[in-house]
Amino acid sequence: MTSFEGVKIFKGLENVAIAETSLSYINGEKGRLVYRGIPVEVLAEKASFEEVAFLLWFGYLPNRKELDDLIRFMADSRDIHPEIEDHIARLPNKAHPMDVLRSCVSLFGVFEDLQASHDELQRAARITAKLPTIVSYHYRLSRGMKPVPPDKTLDHASNFYYMITGEKPDEEISKLMNSILILHAEQGLNASTFTAMVIASTLSDMYSSITGAIGALKGPLHGGANEKVIDMIEEIGTPENVESYVEKALKEKRKIPGFGHRVYKTYDPRSKVLKEYARKLSLKMNDAKYFPIAEKLEKVVVEKLAHKKIFPNVDLYSGIVYKLLGFPKEIYTAIFAIARVVGWTAHVIEYTKSNKIIRPCGVYVGPMNAEYIPLEARE
Amino acid sequence: MTSFEGVKIFKGLENVAIAETSLSYINGEKGRLVYRGIPVEVLAEKASFEEVAFLLWFGYLPNRKELDDLIRFMADSRDIHPEIEDHIARLPNKAHPMDVLRSCVSLFGVFEDLQASHDELQRAARITAKLPTIVSYHYRLSRGMKPVPPDKTLDHASNFYYMITGEKPDEEISKLMNSILILHAEQGLNASTFTAMVIASTLSDMYSSITGAIGALKGPLHGGANEKVIDMIEEIGTPENVESYVEKALKEKRKIPGFGHRVYKTYDPRSKVLKEYARKLSLKMNDAKYFPIAEKLEKVVVEKLAHKKIFPNVDLYSGIVYKLLGFPKEIYTAIFAIARVVGWTAHVIEYTKSNKIIRPCGVYVGPMNAEYIPLEARE
Ligand SMILES: CC(C)(COP(=O)(O)OP(=O)(O)OC[C@H]1O[C@@H](n2cnc3c(N)ncnc32)[C@H](O)[C@@H]1OP(=O)(O)O)[C@@H](O)C(=O)NCCC(=O)NCCS
Ligand SMILES: CC(C)(COP(=O)(O)OP(=O)(O)OC[C@H]1O[C@@H](n2cnc3c(N)ncnc32)[C@H](O)[C@@H]1OP(=O)(O)O)[C@@H](O)C(=O)NCCC(=O)NCCS
Repeated sequence: MTSFEGVKIFKGLENVAIAETSLSYINGEKGRLVYRGIPVEVLAEKASFEEVAFLLWFGYLPNRKELDDLIRFMADSRDIHPEIEDHIARLPNKAHPMDVLRSCVSLFGVFEDLQASHDELQRAARITAKLPTIVSYHYRLSRGMKPVPPDKTLDHASNFYYMITGEKPDEEISKLMNSILILHAEQGLNASTFTAMVIASTLSDMYSSITGAIGALKGPLHGGANEKVIDMIEEIGTPENVESYVEKALKEKRKIPGFGHRVYKTYDPRSKVLKEYARKLSLKMNDAKYFPIAEKLEKVVVEKLAHKKIFPNVDLYSGIVYKLLGFPKEIYTAIFAIARVVGWTAHVIEYTKSNKIIRPCGVYVGPMNAEYIPLEARE
Repeated sequence: MTSFEGVKIFKGLENVAIAETSLSYINGEKGRLVYRGIPVEVLAEKASFEEVAFLLWFGYLPNRKELDDLIRFMADSRDIHPEIEDHIARLPNKAHPMDVLRSCVSLFGVFEDLQASHDELQRAARITAKLPTIVSYHYRLSRGMKPVPPDKTLDHASNFYYMITGEKPDEEISKLMNSILILHAEQGLNASTFTAMVIASTLSDMYSSITGAIGALKGPLHGGANEKVIDMIEEIGTPENVESYVEKALKEKRKIPGFGHRVYKTYDPRSKVLKEYARKLSLKMNDAKYFPIAEKLEKVVVEKLAHKKIFPNVDLYSGIVYKLLGFPKEIYTAIFAIARVVGWTAHVIEYTKSNKIIRPCGVYVGPMNAEYIPLEARE
């Protein structure tokens, strides 16, 4: 029955290059990630999130005036349409933040006059500015708390922390918030970014692209993994249980969240940075539970799976950092989205400049000349 | 500066096979399309939409009882949650139906307890059942008309016609409505279906996949083309103007909507069937305007572009059929979605059975070792 036997199938599009990009470069063997040529660790240490967003969107590091302009534009764009606030207020308290985010970005596209502005970079900055507001607004309402309106004197990352917790971060936490968002901002043609690009390749609009990307990021094989890591650590309970947990999982052929990557075949550079943040925060917050389990997990999984090139990915320690910062587990993946939206929008803008509709094909393995048997004659 | 020089880029993933499928087979050279082995023209002539949905979802033609069960299940699932009705009522009248559809499917995912049911085939049937209700509900409200509630005695396609126009279709129109939806139900790994698959490959949920697919279908290079065809025909005005219109468009390097296809390099079989529907409806409705212009367009474009293998696609005549059926132009692409949702959901279910996350890569052409110059030192 099989037709087209022998045609090569590119499963998962592994190692298939689909476009040129000058946004980021990953060296999966060496565990290197650069944004427009600059190592992500350097940016996480030295830059602000707005600076990195500018770098990714415009292609170079902004000077003082350019940066101030972007900071002001984004701070002024944080408020969401009262009608969208109204929609959010009508969503169930138990709704998953990623579902809320996906729906609200879609609603942005309903409410905005898409013909009115053709500046996609401005649109990208506006969407980016608003995501934290949606997440915090729904989070607080769903817990019976009053929403905290955005504070224009705070930078993007710090303001997000403030809108969730109701408290302004100290300098250390403010820096940490910026670093976390920087580390998650861009990562090549991962599944959610690629989703945004496929949608954009039909010349649909930016809201459609970002809505789709949020849906893809939600999946547990992608951004959803950071939420699962905390579930796992809580299930494990103490470092002593790690070994037997991992053995059982591998025996049952379950994947261990927070490990493995399509491109990194060694330590993900972001996981190394996040590990140090998690270590420091554990001390600062006087928490002895999460970090030791994660560290033991790292040791055990790497021992057992290094031959398959399985190492910690970005999600192993990020969940712990969020936990120690006091964020509720349901919003971890949404934090990923709040950062990655920069990569999504930048890739959409880059790809559509020399657009080609993305349309692969399948290999048909069904029946070839089936007959239409009339309804009455079917058994 | 270019790294990875010499790496092959699969632009638009043209002719790249990414998975096996037994849903449909396209022969682009011969202009053939089969659903599970049965030619689409045969199904359009003989089957009902529900029958074809069953065929695509389950892999075989249903017997009487199986078909009746699906018909009943879908008819019982047409109502939408009152809270979603409430959201729709709050959307602007000018909202594009595709934006409304995208947002409402996303909201389904917010309101449904995703853990409660794991039957993806039921979920597929339920989503399919509800799309016409969203479209008609918003359409009528936005025009100041009372929504028409679904009528369980009508089949899926006829009920959609009824909910839009407020009138029950005669037998001929009911048959036509079924055929149109059948012709649009499935078409391999086109951009919207592929979007749904990429999202599903992260093991995200069905609502995320369909929401993304709607966003992709909206684009003018994909489903959005049927709306553009009518704009073009109205701009052209009379058959005499076709030649100069086409010449001008080609000189300006504009693409002519309703022509060209990634896979079909000859007449799209669906366009042939739809052309006959358009011809018959023009007679029935006593309309002498649209069909002759489209037919002339076909002649002129094929003459000029057959050497590039450009022929009419599914969208050239479908818009005319909708126009003559009395549907408002804004909903044409949504009609496409109402049908294609069957293919989207079927591919998602098929792909995730032997899932692999879809994650291609890019070829980095940016700077390699850029320095982080401190803000104060930037010019
Ligand atoms: C990220 C991921 C989806 C990459 O997928 P991929 O490139 O398609 O790789 P595969 O799933 O085919 O994995 C290759 C091999 O490593 C194994 N493997 C991959 N990740 C694993 C994990 N987290 N735990 C255990 N085994 C794993 C697979 O079972 C497979 O083994 P096999 O060759 O014996 O069948 C995958 O590593 C994964 O599911 N990780 C867990 C979820 C997660 O943390 N996601 C966040 C990524 S940022
Ligand atoms: C469907 C479509 C996106 C396929 O795209 P694709 O496979 O990437 O093919 P390309 O756009 O690269 O087209 C190949 C060549 O045909 C030309 N071409 C394709 N469709 C054309 C059209 N509708 N009018 C004029 N020229 C067209 C292209 O300009 C290109 O010419 P070139 O080689 O001289 O540059 C494309 O044909 C198109 O844009 N059609 C119009 C929109 C439409 O009707 N879409 C609905 C499809 S169901």
